[in-house]
This record gives sequence, structure tokens and C-alpha cells, in this order.
Amino acid sequence: MGVRLVRFEKDGDWQWGVMVEERVKPLAARYPSLGQLLTEGIADVRRAAEAGEGRWPDEEVRWLCPVTRPARLLCQGANYANHRLEAGMAPVRPPYNLIFAKSDTSLSGPEDDIVRPANVRLLDYEVELALVIGRPLTEPTRVTADNLGDYVAGIVMCDDISARDVQLVEGQWFKGKSYRTFCPTGPFIYLFDEGESGVIHDLHLNLWVNGELRQSANTGQLLYRPEETLTELSAIVDLAPGDLVLTGTPGGVALHLTSEEMASLSDPRIPAEDKWALLERSQAGRAQYLKDGDVVTCEIHSSDGKVHLGTQRNQVVSLN
Amino acid sequence: MGVRLVRFEKDGDWQWGVMVEERVKPLAARYPSLGQLLTEGIADVRRAAEAGEGRWPDEEVRWLCPVTRPARLLCQGANYANHRLEAGMAPVRPPYNLIFAKSDTSLSGPEDDIVRPANVRLLDYEVELALVIGRPLTEPTRVTADNLGDYVAGIVMCDDISARDVQLVEGQWFKGKSYRTFCPTGPFIYLFDEGESGVIHDLHLNLWVNGELRQSANTGQLLYRPEETLTELSAIVDLAPGDLVLTGTPGGVALHLTSEEMASLSDPRIPAEDKWALLERSQAGRAQYLKDGDVVTCEIHSSDGKVHLGTQRNQVVSLN
Repeated sequence: MGVRLVRFEKDGDWQWGVMVEERVKPLAARYPSLGQLLTEGIADVRRAAEAGEGRWPDEEVRWLCPVTRPARLLCQGANYANHRLEAGMAPVRPPYNLIFAKSDTSLSGPEDDIVRPANVRLLDYEVELALVIGRPLTEPTRVTADNLGDYVAGIVMCDDISARDVQLVEGQWFKGKSYRTFCPTGPFIYLFDEGESGVIHDLHLNLWVNGELRQSANTGQLLYRPEETLTELSAIVDLAPGDLVLTGTPGGVALHLTSEEMASLSDPRIPAEDKWALLERSQAGRAQYLKDGDVVTCEIHSSDGKVHLGTQRNQVVSLN
Repeated sequence: MGVRLVRFEKDGDWQWGVMVEERVKPLAARYPSLGQLLTEGIADVRRAAEAGEGRWPDEEVRWLCPVTRPARLLCQGANYANHRLEAGMAPVRPPYNLIFAKSDTSLSGPEDDIVRPANVRLLDYEVELALVIGRPLTEPTRVTADNLGDYVAGIVMCDDISARDVQLVEGQWFKGKSYRTFCPTGPFIYLFDEGESGVIHDLHLNLWVNGELRQSANTGQLLYRPEETLTELSAIVDLAPGDLVLTGTPGGVALHLTSEEMASLSDPRIPAEDKWALLERSQAGRAQYLKDGDVVTCEIHSSDGKVHLGTQRNQVVSLN
């Protein structure tokens, strides 16, 4: 059985902890970053999870984002067939693995508000499984199903909040996906036991808005799998303990585009003003976009419930 | 007069230093990161630059990248009119400031080799002025010509090396611009004196390949200026001391596309295989793309030569 690592605030101070059944048990040692904990503190974490009891029920602590900054957030785009289709792309595995970056300043806690910037009208949600890097990748490395657990310490849930009007009109996705609070993360980092990383391939993802199920999928549907993605990324960039790879979101988001609309939005000959108008017109009937006061809930777990990444519950608010 | 800050290797050890005339003077204190030096060590740096003599001529040291990791590298795309034109975009200021991210693992020294990945055929160069953040930006902040120097500690030269075949076919630019060695940086970080940051607006950029001038421009031609870019970015993400904002490259790169070609490359309905073929066909006559053995040189300086960011000299080699 793996360990559920958490970071939380209690009495005005933040701490690392582990879950023991449904109670939080604080770690004695203080690690300034997730990377340092994963590098120096794993034995500590496992010991804490194995002996003794939890101290507080979860309602007595405030969950913090278990991923600390600085961290690299590399994201796979369009990595589920049904999300490709709703975004105006062919619903098949493409010949390349689409990668973009999200700023680590978007990281926020699993119960924090999602703050809508004043200029953003098309605010969307995207539940995703994220890989938590556990060992430095600094050269081209063949990652396989067998050695995946050597490089991936565990998994965590992220909601890749997206400002569609910024993202799709400007074309490069970094800005529209990087606003502060645009990456609710946690509450649990599930740290794999030896030989357990294969659970990555059979996890259920669910996301609700105001209690209505919007996204429901299984990580077995990922078009580019974690091991091949890490193999490719290792040949391009370095990854360090505490960095994340977000594996993409399934269908069910608010965005809905035909391939003709997506083509127009991507055409550099069409003025940005016309693209904004087109996007607004095409999305006008989509009541699914997030409104102030909406509550987004998401969960990721295995069929048998043994692996559970906890529950996120984030309310949408306006900046002001 | 500002201070030229350097990081270098001498006798197998790395150190910070300042330039005193044309000689390197090491700093006594060791700061583990550029961010820490900018936060705690500025007085130290200025003292070193004001008193005494340099110790070594530059040929007796090996320049290192003066920007340390982790760092955020935020980049402005298509921010000079003549580069927009050659890339198939309207040569005017667009209604948005195009931002993308480059991995900090691309950072390399000003004399290091540029390593071409085996899969990359269309390797291109892009000289750019980069802003070195000196004070945390953690909330929306109005940056003006008057207070720019409060947030920007200084400037440094970067070469935003780009794998056009990866960047333009995949559409999101992060991967094609993030390979290891794809951001030669330095040698000098020019730290502004009080009230000196206005020099940002009148610097000459030049880039040569094998001695042939390819790019020549002035930062006065920037479409989105540093102060408005930082104002906008501060409303989206956090920036910390030691982070970089690359301000974009002028015309003269190897890439040359018509707007029709750029539109086809951006069209999600066209299969990637056809885009690769189109790109290869359209660029076949462009001898400007970097070949193994090519030497890229670049410089950025003011008209009077008082502000000079040094010289980069990077050879292109193949990964084997």
C-alpha cells in the first residue's frame, strides 16, 4: 500500500503529514520543499505512515498544495481522444506528443478559490492525473512500465484551469493556463510502494460542477502513456524531484469547437478581434463555462478505491 | 555606470565576479543562486566593482551562464515587426502580447556548444535582449518607465535557439525551444545604476553566423515594451529575482514563411505529416539554417558602447 502525503496548515503554521486511515499525522522533520522531502525524507514518510495513529480528522486542518514552488509544470495537451474531438481535433493519437508549460505560480490548494481574472469570460476546468517526479532526469533515459516507479515517486490530482478566450485567440497556451490559482492540486500525493506504479494506467477521473458530473474517464485512455512521455521529455529537458507532468484532460470540458472553428482560431491571417468574436459566438450556447459561485469538485481513484487522491472542492470567485 | 556581473569557472571551480575594465574580479562571497545574489549581494557586487583591479583577462576564465537554475524563462514571441513578417504574420503590433515559456534547462554558457538533437533539421537562431528580474513581482503592479529599474535589476543577452520543425508543426512552442543548450546566455549581466534602466530602449542587437551578419536591430523597435510587458505579466504570474523575460527577436532568422504557409502549418485539419512535408519544402532553399560546425556570434550594446553585454560565440554540434 502506498502512502498519502499531504501538506496542511494547522494553527497558522504549515506542515507535512501522512494520512493514517482518515486522520492526518504530522511529520516530525520539516522539509522546505517537496523536492527535498522526496530526496531526503522518504524513509521518514514511510515510517510515519507505518507506526502509530493519525492526530486530526481532515476537517481540523486546512489542505495546502502539496507541490511546492519552484517546480516545473509540464503538460500534455489533447491526450484523450474525446477531448480532442470536442476541441476540433481528430480523435486519434497524433504523431507527436503535444507539450506545453504552465507557470508554477498557478499552483493552489485543493480547497482554495479559483480566481477569475477580470478580462476572462470563458473559464474552463480540466481534471488531470499528474506524475510527481521522484528522481532527477538529466539525460535521455528509457523509461518503461518496469522502471517507471524509479522516476515517478507518485501521483497527484490537478485541475488545469484554462482561460479559453486568452489561450485560443493568442495561440500559445502558457498565458491562458498560468494565472494565479489556475492549478488546484492535491490534497494527496499518493507515493507508490515498490512495484505499484502500474496503477497509473487504470485510474478513474471524475469532475463535477455544482454536483453535475462533467468529466468521467479512465487513465487507460491516455493516448501517450506516462513511460513514453517521460522517455521523450528526458531527451529534451531536465526534470527534478517535485516537478510535475500533467497527463492531459478527458472530454467533457465547457469548450466545444468544430474543426472549422478551431482552424479559424488558429489562422494567423485572421485578426485577433475577429477570433474573439468567433469564439464568443461559438461558445455563447455553452452554459458549462464556469461562473462566479460555481463549485468544481474532482476525484481520482482506482476501481477498488485502494488508491485515492482525495477530493478537490474549489469555488469560482471574481477578482475584486 | 552599471556593473557587469559574470559567473565563471577557474581552476575547476565556479565563482561570481565583476568586470573591472577588461579583467575579471572574483567576489569574495559565494551566492548559491543568481536570485540570492540579487537579493542579498548587490552591495557586495557594487563594492567589488568600485575598488581595486580585476585579476584575470577574460581568456583565462571560462564563462558560465550567469543565470542559475531554477529560473523562470518567459518569452515574448513575434515582438519585432520585421520578424513577424518573415514568420508569415502581419508586421504590426498585435492586440495581445504573445507569451510562451522556455525550460530553464535550455540555459547554457555564452561559449558552450549548441547541441542539435538528432531529430531536428531546421535549427534556427534568435538573438534577444532579456530582462533580469531583481525584485519579486507577486501581485498586479503598474510598471512604468520611471519605476522599471525597481523591478528589473539588469539585462542579459540570450540566443533563443529554435527547432522550427518541432515548434511549428506541433504548434505549442515550448518543446521546440527548450532542448538542452537552446539558450546560450551571457556573458555579462549588466546591472543598472540608479536611473539607468532607460538604456533598455536603445540597444543594438547583432547576430552573425560564420561571420555573416544575419540579424541587426534596435530595441527601440520592440512592439510591446518592457514596462507594459511586466505590468501585464505581474497580473498573471509571479516573477522572482533571477527570473528572465526574453523580449523577442528581430528579423533575419533562417525561417521564412508566407502567411499562407504559416496558416497551413497552424491548421489543425491538416495532418502533421503533411505539415512536415510543407515545412521541409518551403524551407529547402534557406541555406541560413544552422549546420554542424557553424559558429553563431552575437552582441548587444548601446550606441556609445558604454553598455555592452559581451560577446557570445557558440558552435553547433550534433548529438551522437
